[in-house]
Amino acid sequence: MTSKPLPTRHIVSINDLSNRDIETIFEIAQAYLDELPDPQFSYRIGRSTHVASNFILASLFYEPSTRTRLSFESAMLRLGGQTITSADPATSSAAKGESLADSVRVIANYADLMVIRHPRDGAARLAADYSPIPVINGGDGSHEHPTQTLCDLFTLKKKNRHLKNLKIAISGDLRGSRTIHSFVYALARFGANIMPMPARGMGLPAHVDRRLREEFGCKIVTASKAESDDAPIDALYVTPEEPHQPSLFSAAEINLDAALTEKKVDAVYVTRFQKERWADKDQPYPRIDKKFLNAPKYSGASVLHPLPRVGELDASLDTDIRAIYFQQAAYGVPVRMALISLLLGLHKGKSLHKFEGGFAKQSLPIYDQPRSVGMHCPNKNCIVHEPMESQYVRNRFFIVRTDAGESCKLRCGYCESDVEKFVVAHKKNKWFSKDRGMLLRPDEQHLRELIVFADEADAREAGFHFRRNFTNPLSPVRERLKSRS
Amino acid sequence: MTSKPLPTRHIVSINDLSNRDIETIFEIAQAYLDELPDPQFSYRIGRSTHVASNFILASLFYEPSTRTRLSFESAMLRLGGQTITSADPATSSAAKGESLADSVRVIANYADLMVIRHPRDGAARLAADYSPIPVINGGDGSHEHPTQTLCDLFTLKKKNRHLKNLKIAISGDLRGSRTIHSFVYALARFGANIMPMPARGMGLPAHVDRRLREEFGCKIVTASKAESDDAPIDALYVTPEEPHQPSLFSAAEINLDAALTEKKVDAVYVTRFQKERWADKDQPYPRIDKKFLNAPKYSGASVLHPLPRVGELDASLDTDIRAIYFQQAAYGVPVRMALISLLLGLHKGKSLHKFEGGFAKQSLPIYDQPRSVGMHCPNKNCIVHEPMESQYVRNRFFIVRTDAGESCKLRCGYCESDVEKFVVAHKKNKWFSKDRGMLLRPDEQHLRELIVFADEADAREAGFHFRRNFTNPLSPVRERLKSRS
Amino acid sequence: MTSKPLPTRHIVSINDLSNRDIETIFEIAQAYLDELPDPQFSYRIGRSTHVASNFILASLFYEPSTRTRLSFESAMLRLGGQTITSADPATSSAAKGESLADSVRVIANYADLMVIRHPRDGAARLAADYSPIPVINGGDGSHEHPTQTLCDLFTLKKKNRHLKNLKIAISGDLRGSRTIHSFVYALARFGANIMPMPARGMGLPAHVDRRLREEFGCKIVTASKAESDDAPIDALYVTPEEPHQPSLFSAAEINLDAALTEKKVDAVYVTRFQKERWADKDQPYPRIDKKFLNAPKYSGASVLHPLPRVGELDASLDTDIRAIYFQQAAYGVPVRMALISLLLGLHKGKSLHKFEGGFAKQSLPIYDQPRSVGMHCPNKNCIVHEPMESQYVRNRFFIVRTDAGESCKLRCGYCESDVEKFVVAHKKNKWFSKDRGMLLRPDEQHLRELIVFADEADAREAGFHFRRNFTNPLSPVRERLKSRS
Repeated sequence: MTSKPLPTRHIVSINDLSNRDIETIFEIAQAYLDELPDPQFSYRIGRSTHVASNFILASLFYEPSTRTRLSFESAMLRLGGQTITSADPATSSAAKGESLADSVRVIANYADLMVIRHPRDGAARLAADYSPIPVINGGDGSHEHPTQTLCDLFTLKKKNRHLKNLKIAISGDLRGSRTIHSFVYALARFGANIMPMPARGMGLPAHVDRRLREEFGCKIVTASKAESDDAPIDALYVTPEEPHQPSLFSAAEINLDAALTEKKVDAVYVTRFQKERWADKDQPYPRIDKKFLNAPKYSGASVLHPLPRVGELDASLDTDIRAIYFQQAAYGVPVRMALISLLLGLHKGKSLHKFEGGFAKQSLPIYDQPRSVGMHCPNKNCIVHEPMESQYVRNRFFIVRTDAGESCKLRCGYCESDVEKFVVAHKKNKWFSKDRGMLLRPDEQHLRELIVFADEADAREAGFHFRRNFTNPLSPVRERLKSRS
Repeated sequence: MTSKPLPTRHIVSINDLSNRDIETIFEIAQAYLDELPDPQFSYRIGRSTHVASNFILASLFYEPSTRTRLSFESAMLRLGGQTITSADPATSSAAKGESLADSVRVIANYADLMVIRHPRDGAARLAADYSPIPVINGGDGSHEHPTQTLCDLFTLKKKNRHLKNLKIAISGDLRGSRTIHSFVYALARFGANIMPMPARGMGLPAHVDRRLREEFGCKIVTASKAESDDAPIDALYVTPEEPHQPSLFSAAEINLDAALTEKKVDAVYVTRFQKERWADKDQPYPRIDKKFLNAPKYSGASVLHPLPRVGELDASLDTDIRAIYFQQAAYGVPVRMALISLLLGLHKGKSLHKFEGGFAKQSLPIYDQPRSVGMHCPNKNCIVHEPMESQYVRNRFFIVRTDAGESCKLRCGYCESDVEKFVVAHKKNKWFSKDRGMLLRPDEQHLRELIVFADEADAREAGFHFRRNFTNPLSPVRERLKSRS
Repeated sequence: MTSKPLPTRHIVSINDLSNRDIETIFEIAQAYLDELPDPQFSYRIGRSTHVASNFILASLFYEPSTRTRLSFESAMLRLGGQTITSADPATSSAAKGESLADSVRVIANYADLMVIRHPRDGAARLAADYSPIPVINGGDGSHEHPTQTLCDLFTLKKKNRHLKNLKIAISGDLRGSRTIHSFVYALARFGANIMPMPARGMGLPAHVDRRLREEFGCKIVTASKAESDDAPIDALYVTPEEPHQPSLFSAAEINLDAALTEKKVDAVYVTRFQKERWADKDQPYPRIDKKFLNAPKYSGASVLHPLPRVGELDASLDTDIRAIYFQQAAYGVPVRMALISLLLGLHKGKSLHKFEGGFAKQSLPIYDQPRSVGMHCPNKNCIVHEPMESQYVRNRFFIVRTDAGESCKLRCGYCESDVEKFVVAHKKNKWFSKDRGMLLRPDEQHLRELIVFADEADAREAGFHFRRNFTNPLSPVRERLKSRS
């Protein structure tokens, strides 16, 4: 009766959740598992509740899905809630040309929270921008799939009791797989070590690699060829003791002993070739089978897979005790029950630590201009390039310091792609500079007077003139006022 | 226990509801709004109930929809009921060639009421003809969309406290938009004045225009060019004091003062170009934006839109306090909750005034022949022309008096298109006449002996012979019997 | 609390249910009908309950459906349960290339039972093989549709009080219609007589005909031409007194009096042309109309149809009191309520006689080899030929004795197609024989050493050599051990 409005919290990226948030979700999920159902239904994990009675989950899916959508809906129903579903863009108002921003604002009236899947990177962030109800990202393009990561982590934790110092091999299409991107950030934050085993030409995107090293404190350790003949390219992202301290920007050198690369693998995370995101559909792709797992270093390795699989994980492994991918799928229900019920505020004394913030990102300064002004996100699959959304997106970027804080790069506020080359112009004095550091100096109010262009040519075409380094054009008065505060 | 069977009431047209029915719906909708939810969920309008527990709503959608379907389903769930959904004709039995008439009779066993959307005009009426459970029209071709109109009226009434004498501008595709057709009839009935602002070539259909004037008592008032330079084509449908008296067939001249056309506009109702209903997809279309609304006469005009929008309503207006289209979408839930619960008989003491009739139509005499006999509805998109329905439709028309009751036109019993040219033949004497008034003379029994043909040629081909005016071929005995009763 | 785990029971074929199972289902269905709803809702058959509260039904449909899916979902909701739905393969993970075997194992975590429809014969059996929760076949290719048959039988029983000795004519596409296949087996088992009236070239498949005669004890009786001029091809499958005793392999000659073929027909079961399963879409097809039913022998015949109809059953019959096809559709809800609630173990004292077995099949010996070894099922539409399932299917056949037990045929373990020509080879001695009886001699362990090939050529290509009849290569010791037990 006297409870205050619940602030709306969106889960677009795994980094929207702090480590403590994630641990809270796992506690609740475990509690649902502990409430054993009637033994008559021994196949079912966890009992149903009625805590979410009177609440509605909207599923808004613009891309095919079975398990993500059905597991969310099952979770909502097991909580006693209800669901409404738009699963096929061809039969929705998107077929009439409606923007996502409009659809979200309308559907928000029909439900209490929303899960969204979309082919464009960053679409879930756009949806969250326009939604008064919590938005959960059910997968947006190649960007992220945070609830899959929660299930993955939960499975690893149930199996190993902890995540710290686990050695996790990840195999396959590390470029196109959004689940991988959410997953590696989370592993780094919980102190696990990551061993990439990409298909040829499908390594981690450069921006993910850089973030792991620059923002999550990962250091790459490579085994000498002599030590590991069987896998000559063994390389590990190793996380230091406290990786999730954003202040530790460039990680201190750590004294790594050789045992790290020789250590047995705790889990192999296999992922399918994301054909729908590649032009060449017939590339060679690694296949994980019994022979592969016969190597001694995998003798105790759990095998995980976000599913669906389409040939990269041999069915003969299904009966191997190391295969836990169907268990992993099953955990989708209690984990999503926990997330939904926490976002709805249904647990007394437990919450997602509202406003405490997720991971580092929140504190970054923001460059924000209308779509008609300056540089767009260069990622062609970013939601900002969707014609139907052109009135609803902005040229919005986080400003991320680089080079020991002397320079910076821009990170798209939607798809989180990083931009490292651009020029900075000033609306009033009509100058532009190639010194990216210009973006770091002004106060927030002044930041609005700067425009970023993709390159010199664009800046010139817009009527700006080059100057190696123009003075910060604050008026003396404002300078003085600023220095006082 | 002792309650009597509830007569089934269908809502195919806004005119199936009397003004008092509509007011009852609004009272209930307001009551749902007044039951405020937990302040924790301040974004939600209205609290959920359980009155419809054990009831099922079937959504039967043969055309894309998001908001209509999801808002109906949300309304049913918020009432405590359940839903079953067929949202994609490609995955339904329609893909196997099943008629709507059969689908409806089958699905009626699985649910307690049904909402239907279909690309053909008049499809909802056909469905209602075959359904033992209440059918709600969720949009049929270019015909009607009555629940959208209920939301529109409710929004206007919440904003202005009354509907009478409001001046409502309607902009865009007034021809293809079914929401517009339901809407203008309702506005006329509640005494609002309608200012059409069509896109070029997309004015109100002639039959809608005639009905407004001939049946809803509207009179057209045109401002002199001198008075309003900014909008030279200002014309208004003005309703007299008691417009919803069907007896007032040709409205008496009303003394209108010039203020009427000069009066400020109370609301602008914008609608999208219904591309799916036009061959030429690239016609010029008006765009409502800040500049348009800067005209003084719109200074206090609310902006409504049934959504989705696809460019005709600028997103920059979203933050304008006059923009209430998202509010309008939100009201879809309580209004539909009210309609559903009333149709299910869940409100003690409140009902939709059963059998009191909706608007005028019910009392019109009906011409009704099998599909193989005489003239079909000339509207090519009418459900009577759907090959799958050929066994289930009839040549059925309401007989509407014209010319001060001396002549008549026919109105399709499905799509409500009017037919003003036809010839009347007699089954027995094999004569036909061009005097449409022939249809007005016989009693109901005798009406079955008349056949209507589209023109002379059709009548001759069917073996009838012209006669300017054939005697009403009642036998003397029947004439006498008739005169006694 | 102390209840034991419920064994999972799948309903893939009507023959997975014993006659007593079916009678139990009908008792429960009738009980749901007897619980009359509030008379206010006189159109509704049966009242809703809450016994399945907290249970979830998953609908997994890979082919179009309206009535089967919606009637299952309605049944689950009327039981107080909930539903999750994947109705469109194009928006499911099948679009990404996921196997049915994987989809089933994943979705089994989200629900408590599952209904599946699939275009491939035998797909539901594959699903059942991989599912820990009960699987109900909602129609698999041309194979079976057991719940439709339950509704058909229930309708006949409600109309006639019994099934024994009823004379049921079946008209139309008896080859492609899965509902017909389930239906004729069930009729035979309950002692009804079957009168096929196929469209030209669309008779019962040879394997169904043979099963009726060889396993269900049916005998064909043909009327002499003189006796029945109006239907010169009258032939009847007549069942003896105890047809469902598998021991009665070749039915004893029965003394049939002529009255049997002259007897009036009790019901005409009409079925549509299954166009989607035929290459030639324009074949002539019989149409049942008033004229047809005017023949004296149909004077008391009920007309049934599983629907949808597409022209083979004239709409003018809808008002004939013999037409009970819409009633038949309505019974779908209580019958499915009964089946679902029994499979979930929700009826104290009533069960589906667990492990008592359905019909005969369970006791048949099984030949079972990996997909890479020997003969595949020759039915090209069998699920074993679906490339996505190649890792999950086996060459698995029931061994069915023929020729008074001296020889045998093979019946596909998925689609139940029969194979009557094959050769038998032995893995160790590399011989093969054309004597099919070889499969009957070995014990179960030894059966694993035999391989079946489609023909000589295949056996030779695989490196086997012909021998008219090779000695059963059991070692003397094993022979002795076997003879003792």
